[in-house]
Amino acid sequence: MGNPTAGMVVIGDEILSGRTRDANMHHLAGRLTAAGIDLAEVRVVPDVQARIVTALNALRESCDHVFTSGGIGPTHDDITADAVAAAFGVGVDVRADARAILAEHYAKTGRDLNAARLRMARIPDGAALIENPVSAAPGFSLGNVHVMAGVPSVFEAMVASVLPTLTGGAPLISRTLRVDEPEGEVAAVLNGVVGDHADLSFGSYPFIAGQVYGTRIVIRGTDEERIGAALAVLAAKFPGAVEE
Amino acid sequence: MGNPTAGMVVIGDEILSGRTRDANMHHLAGRLTAAGIDLAEVRVVPDVQARIVTALNALRESCDHVFTSGGIGPTHDDITADAVAAAFGVGVDVRADARAILAEHYAKTGRDLNAARLRMARIPDGAALIENPVSAAPGFSLGNVHVMAGVPSVFEAMVASVLPTLTGGAPLISRTLRVDEPEGEVAAVLNGVVGDHADLSFGSYPFIAGQVYGTRIVIRGTDEERIGAALAVLAAKFPGAVEE
Repeated sequence: MGNPTAGMVVIGDEILSGRTRDANMHHLAGRLTAAGIDLAEVRVVPDVQARIVTALNALRESCDHVFTSGGIGPTHDDITADAVAAAFGVGVDVRADARAILAEHYAKTGRDLNAARLRMARIPDGAALIENPVSAAPGFSLGNVHVMAGVPSVFEAMVASVLPTLTGGAPLISRTLRVDEPEGEVAAVLNGVVGDHADLSFGSYPFIAGQVYGTRIVIRGTDEERIGAALAVLAAKFPGAVEE
Repeated sequence: MGNPTAGMVVIGDEILSGRTRDANMHHLAGRLTAAGIDLAEVRVVPDVQARIVTALNALRESCDHVFTSGGIGPTHDDITADAVAAAFGVGVDVRADARAILAEHYAKTGRDLNAARLRMARIPDGAALIENPVSAAPGFSLGNVHVMAGVPSVFEAMVASVLPTLTGGAPLISRTLRVDEPEGEVAAVLNGVVGDHADLSFGSYPFIAGQVYGTRIVIRGTDEERIGAALAVLAAKFPGAVEE
């Protein structure tokens, strides 16, 4: 497509243990698609510095942007800032501007800026802060890596802060046709249509709903007119199909 | 922990585009934890053979087992069998036993075993089939790689077929204490307790519920008694905390 690419590193034992179902990947994927940035790969890694560094270095090399989720709180298992500093080979320490944001926030809420909370002001050298309108403790961007909190409401607010600062490409548009026929019936027709539309991407997703074995065909691309034409061709071949 | 490790490769443009929220990773994570196998890393990659091969080769090298999800249906975008064959450097072709399973299934359901469906009998050389009690088309295991469908009901059935054949370790047990205090208040106490329990793993997960900024502390390990003792120590330090 020629659009910029992104990678994501989800940091969290709680995802890998099955305790929590990740929500941030799905949110980021949708926002990036709308912004014309292709999410090329996601890696979910545990709270282990060497594993975070490996994933970060692989994706910041292969992608235009990398987003991380998780591990920037006040406790012993929040090691993302240190991991990012290690990946870039820079120092990390409590920084005055981040500390001032926290000090103001806790003064307002009547809480102590204690030693644990001060960990959240540890920012790798050279990073720019990402605003956190929900709970103050900032994320940060270093090079092409954008470091964000794991709590979904905070993650989402940080994505909203960062995305407008990035240059996107053409938004990826998609339209979906639901055919209440099994994928094996749909495939031959679909394979024929795919060949005539090399500029579009076609996905075929079987579903089971009660007794119905059906197929959703998703047409993706950046040219609305071409997508509409392909949808019309497919709809004509599957009477009863409905757009979703 | 000394438990066997697993990696997962989720294959699917539909996840990376944000169209679909992945469910299989969460399911597998829970089942593996119960079986005493540590999920060490998940990679989500697009429907592109080279990208699938890279992820597969990295994880089958670093993990005891690898599970894949998606891309084994009848359409042009179902390329997982070919990617696995390429990763292992073996051939892939329609195989008699897989074909027989499909032939019997479609004879029963009154559908044609057409050319598209026959793609689902393409099995890499040397693989063992994984039973699919939902929609017949089998998955397969090759070496330490277990290849499964993306449709959640089928994926789950295949996990249930494969897991009992693997040797697990001690099941990872976890208990959760909810403290209605912000993570920054909880951190100092928690950091103290963590040091006394090096055989356990402690996770700290902030949450926001209405006006409450709270923290869930998750204690994980394989020794039920030790976990219970640590939970009691923490509960005593946070009056009003409740186990979830």
